[in-house]
Amino acid sequence: MKVFSTSFPVRYYETDQMGIVHHSNYIRFFENARSQMMVDLGCPIEEFEKQFGVLIPIVSVECRYRHPARMGDVLTATASVVKSPMAKMEVAQTVVNQRGEVCAEGLVVLGFIDSKTFRPVRCPEVIVQMFEKLQ
Amino acid sequence: MKVFSTSFPVRYYETDQMGIVHHSNYIRFFENARSQMMVDLGCPIEEFEKQFGVLIPIVSVECRYRHPARMGDVLTATASVVKSPMAKMEVAQTVVNQRGEVCAEGLVVLGFIDSKTFRPVRCPEVIVQMFEKLQ
Amino acid sequence: MKVFSTSFPVRYYETDQMGIVHHSNYIRFFENARSQMMVDLGCPIEEFEKQFGVLIPIVSVECRYRHPARMGDVLTATASVVKSPMAKMEVAQTVVNQRGEVCAEGLVVLGFIDSKTFRPVRCPEVIVQMFEKLQ
Amino acid sequence: MKVFSTSFPVRYYETDQMGIVHHSNYIRFFENARSQMMVDLGCPIEEFEKQFGVLIPIVSVECRYRHPARMGDVLTATASVVKSPMAKMEVAQTVVNQRGEVCAEGLVVLGFIDSKTFRPVRCPEVIVQMFEKLQ
Repeated sequence: MKVFSTSFPVRYYETDQMGIVHHSNYIRFFENARSQMMVDLGCPIEEFEKQFGVLIPIVSVECRYRHPARMGDVLTATASVVKSPMAKMEVAQTVVNQRGEVCAEGLVVLGFIDSKTFRPVRCPEVIVQMFEKLQ
Repeated sequence: MKVFSTSFPVRYYETDQMGIVHHSNYIRFFENARSQMMVDLGCPIEEFEKQFGVLIPIVSVECRYRHPARMGDVLTATASVVKSPMAKMEVAQTVVNQRGEVCAEGLVVLGFIDSKTFRPVRCPEVIVQMFEKLQ
Repeated sequence: MKVFSTSFPVRYYETDQMGIVHHSNYIRFFENARSQMMVDLGCPIEEFEKQFGVLIPIVSVECRYRHPARMGDVLTATASVVKSPMAKMEVAQTVVNQRGEVCAEGLVVLGFIDSKTFRPVRCPEVIVQMFEKLQ
Repeated sequence: MKVFSTSFPVRYYETDQMGIVHHSNYIRFFENARSQMMVDLGCPIEEFEKQFGVLIPIVSVECRYRHPARMGDVLTATASVVKSPMAKMEVAQTVVNQRGEVCAEGLVVLGFIDSKTFRPVRCPEVIVQMFEKLQ
């Protein structure tokens, strides 16, 4: 199972008055890794949306917080497709800090909808095949 | 089981290029409802932190997205404690729009840590009793 | 000069590790007041965009920070049009806390562009007249 | 005058329903560049706060928007100190895209306050000297 990843420093505006990264931001870090996955696969999300007229909304997220990230940390977010996209796609995700500590891990389920009608559609076939090659 | 709630309009900066509220924001809306719960119980989160020297970090979040919220919607976020706080507290959450459609629902688990040592502690006894009265 | 306003509590995710509201959020609070202005004028921004095919991007913002807002504060953001919209519209803005202390004040200049071509256009005439009545 | 910079891709959650990066995010990008400046000078902001007991709140921001940034863009934010820090520090800022187009430029004025009392203080002498060497 191929793991895609992207790294970035913690931003000041991502901290909260507890002095740690606000928990909502990990959901955004997960997305950063999925965006990088699409770039690495040669089909950035914004081109996917335009080319296929298909949007990829989120069906559900689960996130378990293991270790607080802080200002000064450099995080690596990862994404790996655990269930090939048909009607839905499941992506396992982690956020790890520069010392290898897992800050958060989770599972994100995505769907596919027509960008005009907002109705569910199947994942475009070329994308299905692209992901199947990864398994 | 008592349900606490707070309402607010969708903000322009919460939308994304899909034209709907970005999914990460629902995790923040959930928090809005929990903050309101603490206010309604007479113990706003910032006073809780100061008075008890205890922070309430997030252990895990789960969120299922049902219906996209859009600019112009007025959302109501709800929180109800489903498991009385001891070492952990479980809160059921929803985000509902002005037409009663459930936009998102989920479960958030919170822990209690000492604000100095960041080590897990029990929920302060007066708070435990406060929540037990709600059941 | 008519002043439009909207109130909202400080959100936990808007605080940073200084323990105060992160400065970038005031730019968003300013927008909240402008959105409320459009609602009060009977032309919410999302309907304006659809009806006229015109977007209202930001040309410039200036913000002076006077007093930090904190968790527990209830803020009121205001907007008042200081220069009637033609090619551009100028809006004076403030954020005031529940004790009347000015947290921030500033000036936002907005333009008008065609939503298809992204080229500058004049403000739709009915909107110009709507704002002129306010002066 | 030394220019400090840092690069990062546009994130999906930074876009809004206009399909471009929401204007409030440039204020955050400016901060990214200032954080990088402190790292490059060997004194990351979080260490500065701890070591000197001094916070660096924002006094004012000005930002002029030149060119919209979009999903797929890689932005470079820059910071250069135009007025050596005494009571205040002035930082010129830009955000430039991968094609060299200036997306935004501005000026940020920062102050120095004691982290305990929140009262204005002078910039620590070693930091003043560090910045003076840059001129």
